[in-house]
Amino acid sequence: MAGSSIGKYFVVTNFGESHGPAIGCVIDGCPPGLALSTVDIQHDLDRRRPGQSKFVTQRNEADAVKILSGVYEGVTTGTPVALLIENTDQRSRDYSDVVRQFRPSHADWSYWQKFGVRDPRGGGRSSARLTAPTVAAGAVARKWLKEALGVTIRARVEAIGTLELPFEDWEEVDKNPFFAANASAIEKASAYLMELRKAGNSIGARVQFEAVGVPAGLGDPVYNRLDAALAYALMGLNAVKAVEIGSGVEASRMNGVAANDQMSAKGFLSNNAGGILGGISSGAPVTGRVSIKPTPSIVTPLKSLDIDGNEIEVVTRGRHDPCVGIRAVPVVEALVALVLMDAALSQRAQCGNLGVPAQALFS
Amino acid sequence: MAGSSIGKYFVVTNFGESHGPAIGCVIDGCPPGLALSTVDIQHDLDRRRPGQSKFVTQRNEADAVKILSGVYEGVTTGTPVALLIENTDQRSRDYSDVVRQFRPSHADWSYWQKFGVRDPRGGGRSSARLTAPTVAAGAVARKWLKEALGVTIRARVEAIGTLELPFEDWEEVDKNPFFAANASAIEKASAYLMELRKAGNSIGARVQFEAVGVPAGLGDPVYNRLDAALAYALMGLNAVKAVEIGSGVEASRMNGVAANDQMSAKGFLSNNAGGILGGISSGAPVTGRVSIKPTPSIVTPLKSLDIDGNEIEVVTRGRHDPCVGIRAVPVVEALVALVLMDAALSQRAQCGNLGVPAQALFS
Amino acid sequence: MAGSSIGKYFVVTNFGESHGPAIGCVIDGCPPGLALSTVDIQHDLDRRRPGQSKFVTQRNEADAVKILSGVYEGVTTGTPVALLIENTDQRSRDYSDVVRQFRPSHADWSYWQKFGVRDPRGGGRSSARLTAPTVAAGAVARKWLKEALGVTIRARVEAIGTLELPFEDWEEVDKNPFFAANASAIEKASAYLMELRKAGNSIGARVQFEAVGVPAGLGDPVYNRLDAALAYALMGLNAVKAVEIGSGVEASRMNGVAANDQMSAKGFLSNNAGGILGGISSGAPVTGRVSIKPTPSIVTPLKSLDIDGNEIEVVTRGRHDPCVGIRAVPVVEALVALVLMDAALSQRAQCGNLGVPAQALFS
Amino acid sequence: MAGSSIGKYFVVTNFGESHGPAIGCVIDGCPPGLALSTVDIQHDLDRRRPGQSKFVTQRNEADAVKILSGVYEGVTTGTPVALLIENTDQRSRDYSDVVRQFRPSHADWSYWQKFGVRDPRGGGRSSARLTAPTVAAGAVARKWLKEALGVTIRARVEAIGTLELPFEDWEEVDKNPFFAANASAIEKASAYLMELRKAGNSIGARVQFEAVGVPAGLGDPVYNRLDAALAYALMGLNAVKAVEIGSGVEASRMNGVAANDQMSAKGFLSNNAGGILGGISSGAPVTGRVSIKPTPSIVTPLKSLDIDGNEIEVVTRGRHDPCVGIRAVPVVEALVALVLMDAALSQRAQCGNLGVPAQALFS
Repeated sequence: MAGSSIGKYFVVTNFGESHGPAIGCVIDGCPPGLALSTVDIQHDLDRRRPGQSKFVTQRNEADAVKILSGVYEGVTTGTPVALLIENTDQRSRDYSDVVRQFRPSHADWSYWQKFGVRDPRGGGRSSARLTAPTVAAGAVARKWLKEALGVTIRARVEAIGTLELPFEDWEEVDKNPFFAANASAIEKASAYLMELRKAGNSIGARVQFEAVGVPAGLGDPVYNRLDAALAYALMGLNAVKAVEIGSGVEASRMNGVAANDQMSAKGFLSNNAGGILGGISSGAPVTGRVSIKPTPSIVTPLKSLDIDGNEIEVVTRGRHDPCVGIRAVPVVEALVALVLMDAALSQRAQCGNLGVPAQALFS
Repeated sequence: MAGSSIGKYFVVTNFGESHGPAIGCVIDGCPPGLALSTVDIQHDLDRRRPGQSKFVTQRNEADAVKILSGVYEGVTTGTPVALLIENTDQRSRDYSDVVRQFRPSHADWSYWQKFGVRDPRGGGRSSARLTAPTVAAGAVARKWLKEALGVTIRARVEAIGTLELPFEDWEEVDKNPFFAANASAIEKASAYLMELRKAGNSIGARVQFEAVGVPAGLGDPVYNRLDAALAYALMGLNAVKAVEIGSGVEASRMNGVAANDQMSAKGFLSNNAGGILGGISSGAPVTGRVSIKPTPSIVTPLKSLDIDGNEIEVVTRGRHDPCVGIRAVPVVEALVALVLMDAALSQRAQCGNLGVPAQALFS
Repeated sequence: MAGSSIGKYFVVTNFGESHGPAIGCVIDGCPPGLALSTVDIQHDLDRRRPGQSKFVTQRNEADAVKILSGVYEGVTTGTPVALLIENTDQRSRDYSDVVRQFRPSHADWSYWQKFGVRDPRGGGRSSARLTAPTVAAGAVARKWLKEALGVTIRARVEAIGTLELPFEDWEEVDKNPFFAANASAIEKASAYLMELRKAGNSIGARVQFEAVGVPAGLGDPVYNRLDAALAYALMGLNAVKAVEIGSGVEASRMNGVAANDQMSAKGFLSNNAGGILGGISSGAPVTGRVSIKPTPSIVTPLKSLDIDGNEIEVVTRGRHDPCVGIRAVPVVEALVALVLMDAALSQRAQCGNLGVPAQALFS
Repeated sequence: MAGSSIGKYFVVTNFGESHGPAIGCVIDGCPPGLALSTVDIQHDLDRRRPGQSKFVTQRNEADAVKILSGVYEGVTTGTPVALLIENTDQRSRDYSDVVRQFRPSHADWSYWQKFGVRDPRGGGRSSARLTAPTVAAGAVARKWLKEALGVTIRARVEAIGTLELPFEDWEEVDKNPFFAANASAIEKASAYLMELRKAGNSIGARVQFEAVGVPAGLGDPVYNRLDAALAYALMGLNAVKAVEIGSGVEASRMNGVAANDQMSAKGFLSNNAGGILGGISSGAPVTGRVSIKPTPSIVTPLKSLDIDGNEIEVVTRGRHDPCVGIRAVPVVEALVALVLMDAALSQRAQCGNLGVPAQALFS
């Protein structure tokens, strides 16, 4: 397989560039009989959509999804589901300069070295815009996981730079522009971000996720473990620099007595494992977090090179998220959904069931 | 593909259980013409081998590798290279009790839920012993990467629990039982580990890695990014709970001005990216770290369940590493080698070259 | 991987249904730097297009292809090439009856048993219309094979039912509605087909293909042999019931002295092998043929069942090719191109070259 | 995936060379809970074993299989099943001459062009000996298909060269050295083969197969059709030059009225489709045949080249089957089993069942 697909059973192949005519994906292996309409997908796309607050890029895209195949009379047929999102707000401009410069910490440089040719319009394929098809595909997986298995997946921003946004209530996440499960810190976060923006700077973030109701038994013993598949999916998201499962980095500092998750007839007494033991889901919530670097696109001048190797200074203007980590929340949820979906179908292939339902594991 | 293979071009399929007759792997897609003998592989296996210090399991395995195929007159022929390691120190015992109990934070529970049948001998397939074939395959990749591309891969323990082992010198790594690039902290580390062991406890660790000389251009834009592939491989290693690339978790706390890696005609002025931009290698060293949880096998009694759902107390005796993170070092190196090898062959398939040599990128 | 992709290096994922809004494909792994426009693709699509003679379906589709991604300023960028063909001549009608009946020897029955849901409009995904994206993708492969390796791929109808159309001249193929390399038998073929059509009947056909200039060295020793990959691709084409390589079925009747292809300094003295030895291309032309069953859609009433299991009589009206084998010619060429392309990139991945050029093998 | 694996769900990776220390395979994705011992596998291996009659090679191999992993207390655990067969009758000799000559119609030439290095001992990896691991893996698939689905798979030689061996009784197949379902033609066949052998010649053959009880619903609509997967597997077998499904080549000569398989409440009234409609099993028996070329190894001198390009004459001595098609019978059965197994697990992954049982389709 070439590199633009994720999953082996529920396979999503992503295509498109930021300023081409359209972006989209093909989902192959979708179970037949799932009720599906654009409404189911559009909800998640709208959460990721740009232009919704002053803290994200002002590019204005409707991100209206079309279902081109695989659905008949509102139900999936088991054939590939092709999803299309047209690019409508591509600003026409002259890219002859841009294509000759490498913006620091962008993919410009590495794409050029790899391919020897580069689509410079809006970052081409390296744009975070390409997460939209991922979100669309994730919405399909999520609906199936909810309906077939009762799985709930959610994520939240738990820190913006050095500003922690402690967990208060999942209900808050969709009520503020930061996807924070927290009402009390919103004002502080707004001020923090406005200041960075004014300074022509950007900032990193941390996103936490959990999937509740995941059946026990998903994942494989060696190599294709469930945590490996999650790490693959999440580290593959633009700007992510770390993936943690369960207690994550902190596990390296713990001793065995503290780290071990003991069990009672009511379930696990802790969840340092993040719901995964030996690479296979245990029935406890699957949890983790990702660390996201600051948007590299800033108006502060930085040292770089042009394609002839000359040293230059680059200022990156345009419509950029000051904290790209914020809009990562719906993408993280989608990626977790894609991984769990794939693992569920894999489990069904080999073992003939979808894993032991989480609610059935304990009295 | 089922779950026991890693890579798409240089495909390693792992098999075996801790106490079966043998473990091993098949490497498919190995370039022909590589000089290869068991000596090349044994060196890396010996570094991972148990029983070499009092800080690791006392199981005594020669881990002698046999090449069953794919090599003729000392040179790879391009056909599958099958590697076999016999299990010689399987202690015969009665497993009828063990199979009825779930050791806390072990894979016992999740394997049982997944498969409904379980090989309890020494943890079966969930044993860290199954990293030996990974190391063997990694040695082949490493040799090719060194000879064809000049890549050097190394790793070290940078912390054991809360004890940091600051970098001093790569030369030290193979001179102490902790794989620490540090001579001055060894005594302290020994004392720290001995105390934990006496207390019937275990401890986590952090391993740092780097690959120098990696050509620019390895990896894919969306999904199968080089960092994603590294995260997959490394998170798939037993007991790993976090994978970081470049500045990792710290990137979430940084601002754009600080995090961006500026460039000059001599190269990158920093390497927060860990040598990967937009999922594709930049020519800078590929760097990262993994966080490893403490060995769950400890003699301290812990609450658990038996297969009938009864609450029990479990004490895990046997020959276990008190800090499983230590012996992870050669495995981390092997996994990094496998990922880079696969990405190099992928690059050659699509773009017709192996990427731009790191040394050619800058004046 | 789910089932709608072909190739591992040059991966084509096909989507769509006969009467949905659009059909198309995504090509992943395309080499960068290939000059590509819709013109290059449209030529092959037009050869497959319906409605061009009275011997093929009268459905009228422009089959205008759009390139949605992967091409910038007329050159492939190495990112996925998404190709879209809108369905414009979907006749609106009531399918409530159709969906309750199984047309004999159609996919209706097996799709229903597999998925439990079925898109009955024009055969849904089982329509031969879905070969259009294959032809489009094949055009890209073909262009690259021609430019990078000098490979020429062609096919022809060598028999319609019991009427043989002996080879005369490749130049004739595009000059008659039967894709026959033969001018003298066209009149007879026209009469033969007109008679069948009047009788409400249809007929099978045989298509021969050859690829000239294929470098030696493409294919793998065991399982993924070049002949295996060709058989997979060609048997996967609608209505194909047999695939032969080289002397094919006749080889089973030959003795070794006659069948062996002897060699001289000028090349092979015969080509019973069809250019493939031990699963790997030899440098001789890659040749073979496919046998295609008659179109099952005929107006003669036939016994069948409805979805309640009742015995019924079915007459299949609609716009159908009386000899579906005719329009298979450009599809066979496309499939051969896709297989050779994939094998070439595979060879480049493992061995670092594209195989030994056919013209360099002999003096 | 590299080229030495077959299947995506039940993945068999084959390794080894004719005269290396051992050959074997790893089965990944095997369902847990299947009772399995070497006895189950040895039966099929023994049918393929050389040296059992004067009509096959006199190489004397016990072909004793070892199970290295994946089975605990006689039951599969769901982890990889590694199977090993040691090579015991490798005749030691000097290969320095052999490696410099290309035997006509052998893989010597193409391997050399591909890899630039070649294991000449007994044909290396191109030897038909490498079908033994396929047979071993097929035995596991076959057992599961029988026990879980009630599928029966069988094959027979239906022609040796121009000598037809008409079907009489499946019970005869294992009672004669030709795997013919026919008692009356055995004498004639013996004489026919003895004469060819005396003349230093060899002969082709045709093998017919059928799988009864295959559930409806296996296979995918586009590309990965069940017939495509069968063609891939069977054309990938050494010396096979044609694969036919159902009426095969004959379908190209039929008209629609004759070719269509009508249906009644009792089932299909004919089976020209060979049990596959639109790429998906229909519940009727899956049938087909393969055509196998004569063994290229004959003592008659033939024109060829050496590695310096000099014209030479080659006589191939050694222990060769005069009709390699005979021993293909158990391999064809094994390959059909592997394909059906893979399709069954795929069906279970996507649709949640194993297909509709053949016996339940009709009243």
